[in-house]
Amino acid sequence: MSISSNEITQLFNIEKPIIQAGMIWASGWRLASAVSNAGGLGIIGSGSMYPEILREHIKKCKAATDKPFAVNVPLLYPNIKEHIQIIIDNKVPIVFTSAGNPKTYTGILKAAGIKVVHVVSSSKFAQKAEAAGCDALVAEGFEAGGHNGREETTTFVLIPAVKEKVNIPVIAAGGIANGRQMLAAMILGANAVQIGTRFIASEEASCHINFKNAVLAAGEGDTKLSLKKLTPVRLLKNEFYMHIKNAENQNASVEDLTTLLGRGRAKKGMFEGDLNRGELEIGQACTHLKTIQPAMEIVNEIWNEYNVLLNSFHK
Amino acid sequence: MSISSNEITQLFNIEKPIIQAGMIWASGWRLASAVSNAGGLGIIGSGSMYPEILREHIKKCKAATDKPFAVNVPLLYPNIKEHIQIIIDNKVPIVFTSAGNPKTYTGILKAAGIKVVHVVSSSKFAQKAEAAGCDALVAEGFEAGGHNGREETTTFVLIPAVKEKVNIPVIAAGGIANGRQMLAAMILGANAVQIGTRFIASEEASCHINFKNAVLAAGEGDTKLSLKKLTPVRLLKNEFYMHIKNAENQNASVEDLTTLLGRGRAKKGMFEGDLNRGELEIGQACTHLKTIQPAMEIVNEIWNEYNVLLNSFHK
Repeated sequence: MSISSNEITQLFNIEKPIIQAGMIWASGWRLASAVSNAGGLGIIGSGSMYPEILREHIKKCKAATDKPFAVNVPLLYPNIKEHIQIIIDNKVPIVFTSAGNPKTYTGILKAAGIKVVHVVSSSKFAQKAEAAGCDALVAEGFEAGGHNGREETTTFVLIPAVKEKVNIPVIAAGGIANGRQMLAAMILGANAVQIGTRFIASEEASCHINFKNAVLAAGEGDTKLSLKKLTPVRLLKNEFYMHIKNAENQNASVEDLTTLLGRGRAKKGMFEGDLNRGELEIGQACTHLKTIQPAMEIVNEIWNEYNVLLNSFHK
Repeated sequence: MSISSNEITQLFNIEKPIIQAGMIWASGWRLASAVSNAGGLGIIGSGSMYPEILREHIKKCKAATDKPFAVNVPLLYPNIKEHIQIIIDNKVPIVFTSAGNPKTYTGILKAAGIKVVHVVSSSKFAQKAEAAGCDALVAEGFEAGGHNGREETTTFVLIPAVKEKVNIPVIAAGGIANGRQMLAAMILGANAVQIGTRFIASEEASCHINFKNAVLAAGEGDTKLSLKKLTPVRLLKNEFYMHIKNAENQNASVEDLTTLLGRGRAKKGMFEGDLNRGELEIGQACTHLKTIQPAMEIVNEIWNEYNVLLNSFHK
C-alpha cells in the first residue's frame, strides 16, 4: 500500500484527509465549521480579518462544531501579534502559517499546545519549515489560487520533490478539485490535500455571489500568476488584471504596482463583488467547477470519488 | 479498474504506454530505436533536421529496431512538405504533429495509412485535433520543456479537463519523469505518458554532454516559460535566458526578441554545448533527474516503478 493519509488524520484528529484552504474574504466560521463537521479540516482565513473579527469567528466556529478546525495566519499581516494571542487565548487547536518565516511563531504556538503547519512552494522552504519545528507542511503548486511562489513549480513536480526532502507529512495544494485529482496527489506522495478553489463554489463561502459565479464561468487560461514583482498571486483575468498586465508590460516599478494595487482591492472584488475593479484570487482548478454546493456535499463528493477510484484498484 | 493503457498500446502496437518525446537536437535514431526496442514508443524529432538528415535517421532507425517508432513534425517547419513526403515514402507508421493546425496534414497522413497524434495544451485545441481526425493526442502541461501553450494550464488540471472533452486517447506530457508521476498521470485520465526531459539524461540522446550535465544539475525554479510574445518555450535559466528576460522586462517588441533569438540558438546550446549563449530547452522534471542512463534502463525503471505502485493497491 503506497498511500498514507493516517499521518494527517491522526495529527489533526480528523476523519478525512481533506483540508479546506484559508481564503481571504471567503473562509469565515460558516465555511470552516461546515467542512469540519463533514469530517475534513475547516480553516478560518484570518488574512482579511481585524483582531476582533477573528475572535468572533473563532467563537462562532467553536459554537458551530465540536470538531477540530484551524486558523490560517499570513505571517506578514500587520496585526500578526494580536492574531497569534487571540489564537492562543481561544485554544485554537491548529494553525496554518503562510507568507513569511516559520521560525518566528512556530515555537510560541507549539509551546501553547497548537499544531503548526506552514505553507511552502519549494523544497528549500519545506526544509526550513521542518527545521523550524512545524508538524506538517502544505506544498502549494503553481496552479493554486492566491499568493504563490516565484519558482512556478507545479503540483506534479513539487509534491514528489518536497516529499523526497522532508520527513514531516506533506499536504498537496494546487489544482485539486475532485476525488480523481486527490488520488493523483496522494500517489505523488501527499498525505492529505488542501482545496481552495472548489470551496469558493460553496454555499457557506462568505465571498460575493458575483465572484462565485465568475469562478464557475472561468476555464482554462482564465487565471494568471501576476504581480511577480510584489508577491506573486494567481488572479482571475478581469479589467483590474488587465491594468496590472499593461503596467507590467511597461516595466512598472514596485512602487507603481503598489499604487495601482492600492488598498482594499481584494475586498472590493471578492467580498463586494466588483468584478471589474476588484482583485479576484482563484486557482486553475476553476476549470473543473460546475455548480455551487453546500460544503458538506463537496467534502463528501470528493471523498466518495476518491474512495471509489481507490477501491477500483483492489478488484 | 480505472486505468486504461490499452487504447494507446493497441493503437501503436507497443508493449508499454511510455512514449519518448520528439526533442530537437536530442532525439535522433539512436534514442528513438532504443526506446522502441525497450517496448515503448521512440520518436525522431525532425524539427532540427534537414530533409536528407531526416531520411537518414528514419532508415537508421528502421535498421536498429523492428518495433514501431514515430516522427515528430512541428507543422510550422519550413521544410514541412518534404518531411511529410519522406515520412510517407519511408512508411513511418506513426506521426506526432505539433505547433500548427492539425487540419492541414492529418488527412494526407491518414490516407497513407499513418497514425496521427497531435500535441495540444488546451481542451479547445484537443477538440480541434479530434475533429481533424487525429487518432490520439498529447496534452502537454505548463511544466513541460520546449514549446508550450499560452494558457499555462498545468498537467494536473489539463489532463482531466481534456479527457472530459474528447473521446480519442490522451497521452499526458509535462512533469513526468518516474513511475510515480506516470501512475498519477494515468489516474488523472491519461492513457499513456510522453516523457522528454528524463530522456535528455540518456546515453543515446544526441544533445551535447554539457547540456545533459546542466540538466542533471538543475532543480526547482531553474527553468522558466519564456518568449511568450513569440512562441512560449520553457528554457533552462542561463546567460541567454537572462538577455531574453531583460529584453522582455523592457517591453521588447516581437522584432527585437526575434533578433535577439537569432538563428541557431538551440543548436548552439543543446547540440554544441554552449551553455552561456545557447538556448536550452528543458522541463521542470529536471528536478527529479539523478544520472545519465541507457534509454532502455530508463524505460524499464519507469515501467517497473509504475507497476510496483499499481500492484501495491491490489494487496
